[in-house]
Amino acid sequence: MNILVLGGARSGKSRHAQARCEALSGSLAYVATAEAHDGEMTDRIARHRADRGQRWRTVDAPVDLPGAIRSSAEWADAILVDCLTLWLSNLLLAGEDIAMWTSKLADAVRSCAVPVVFVSNEVGLSIVPENALARRFRDEAGWLNQQMAALCDEVILVTAGLPMTLKDGA
Amino acid sequence: MNILVLGGARSGKSRHAQARCEALSGSLAYVATAEAHDGEMTDRIARHRADRGQRWRTVDAPVDLPGAIRSSAEWADAILVDCLTLWLSNLLLAGEDIAMWTSKLADAVRSCAVPVVFVSNEVGLSIVPENALARRFRDEAGWLNQQMAALCDEVILVTAGLPMTLKDGA
Amino acid sequence: MNILVLGGARSGKSRHAQARCEALSGSLAYVATAEAHDGEMTDRIARHRADRGQRWRTVDAPVDLPGAIRSSAEWADAILVDCLTLWLSNLLLAGEDIAMWTSKLADAVRSCAVPVVFVSNEVGLSIVPENALARRFRDEAGWLNQQMAALCDEVILVTAGLPMTLKDGA
Repeated sequence: MNILVLGGARSGKSRHAQARCEALSGSLAYVATAEAHDGEMTDRIARHRADRGQRWRTVDAPVDLPGAIRSSAEWADAILVDCLTLWLSNLLLAGEDIAMWTSKLADAVRSCAVPVVFVSNEVGLSIVPENALARRFRDEAGWLNQQMAALCDEVILVTAGLPMTLKDGA
Repeated sequence: MNILVLGGARSGKSRHAQARCEALSGSLAYVATAEAHDGEMTDRIARHRADRGQRWRTVDAPVDLPGAIRSSAEWADAILVDCLTLWLSNLLLAGEDIAMWTSKLADAVRSCAVPVVFVSNEVGLSIVPENALARRFRDEAGWLNQQMAALCDEVILVTAGLPMTLKDGA
Repeated sequence: MNILVLGGARSGKSRHAQARCEALSGSLAYVATAEAHDGEMTDRIARHRADRGQRWRTVDAPVDLPGAIRSSAEWADAILVDCLTLWLSNLLLAGEDIAMWTSKLADAVRSCAVPVVFVSNEVGLSIVPENALARRFRDEAGWLNQQMAALCDEVILVTAGLPMTLKDGA
């Protein structure tokens, strides 16, 4: 039972995804794809980690997200991946092979014995960006979301903190 | 019974919000947060005002929106606030304390005896803006929409003129 | 029975619209509004055309979309227009009269005896673009989507490949 939680910036998507995990019992893995590039970011990440509380253990996975899902599944009862968009951004900036990583991610998800909840940004509802890298990112993000939506049992779109079901896991 | 009407640019959100107010009886307050910065804008505001017809009285509130809601509630049977996004933009450009104003707005809404219909833009469904002020505005707009959605009984997302219920007041 | 399929970039809207047409029997017209400006684009258009298979015949209509709908209706059992946003962009860049063309399009749709499925981008869910032409395009795209949504029997919003019904043709 995997869930994809989509939403815009500051839509409440991470909070919704976290609440879905906390509704399950047992140990929870927070797979973080964000990298701390400066002090402000480091502080913010530390604050968020403290906010999550005792049931959560954080696993950093800026690039090897499939590996982090596999290793987390050995001890966690549910896994939250926050978020796919930052992961894609890391891959793109590092010049990684996106199709290869996406295929590895799909394999990791399919063979995962515990539920995985993915957070991802919807980034394509604006005019075409002028910047070529931004256009490529937008395309890749759209394709990744489509693939993950096909792979997940349930897909939720969060707007202003309110969830809307796009695909019903029932 | 308060309503939040969300939507993108030219989505028909204001028209929908206005129709919701006009379905109620009595006097209607149109609380306008737009400021006329040039002749074109002045003409457009005047045209919109004439279009709204006799039941509406316009109250300008580029900054003190909580005050405008309180004073309008003394004579109006329903209040339309159009829109929260421009209000936030005014606050940000004037260097106002956004948390303080948002808290005042929440107080005004909670103590308001007549229905208030808010119009607001959803602005977070694109790639991260390059401009730092734009990023801050996008974050603040997302948080404001979340707070207002929590405070309102009904939340509607308008796309291409078509309303979709995100939170049902019933 | 006309359908409007809305969605962001890489949302799967074209694929959904194509599947809706292929669910119908008979000959299918693919009315393409894209113009090949370079070799890469030419290759991509040729590849897409080959992918669509034998039931489809492609009609190019970068500007005279109403004319292409009328002429396609003479032989096709269903018409796919992909997409309105590129058509609007072509009109804007060529300095054409958008209101006139939109009115002609509405006439062509109303008098069309076979189903027409339109694909269009939702482009207004971000912060205001800095570029004046981008702002104008965004406004025009929003208005066009509203008009087409009013004209169509069914309106679908596609997110991450998943359709959501905004207006139900039933």
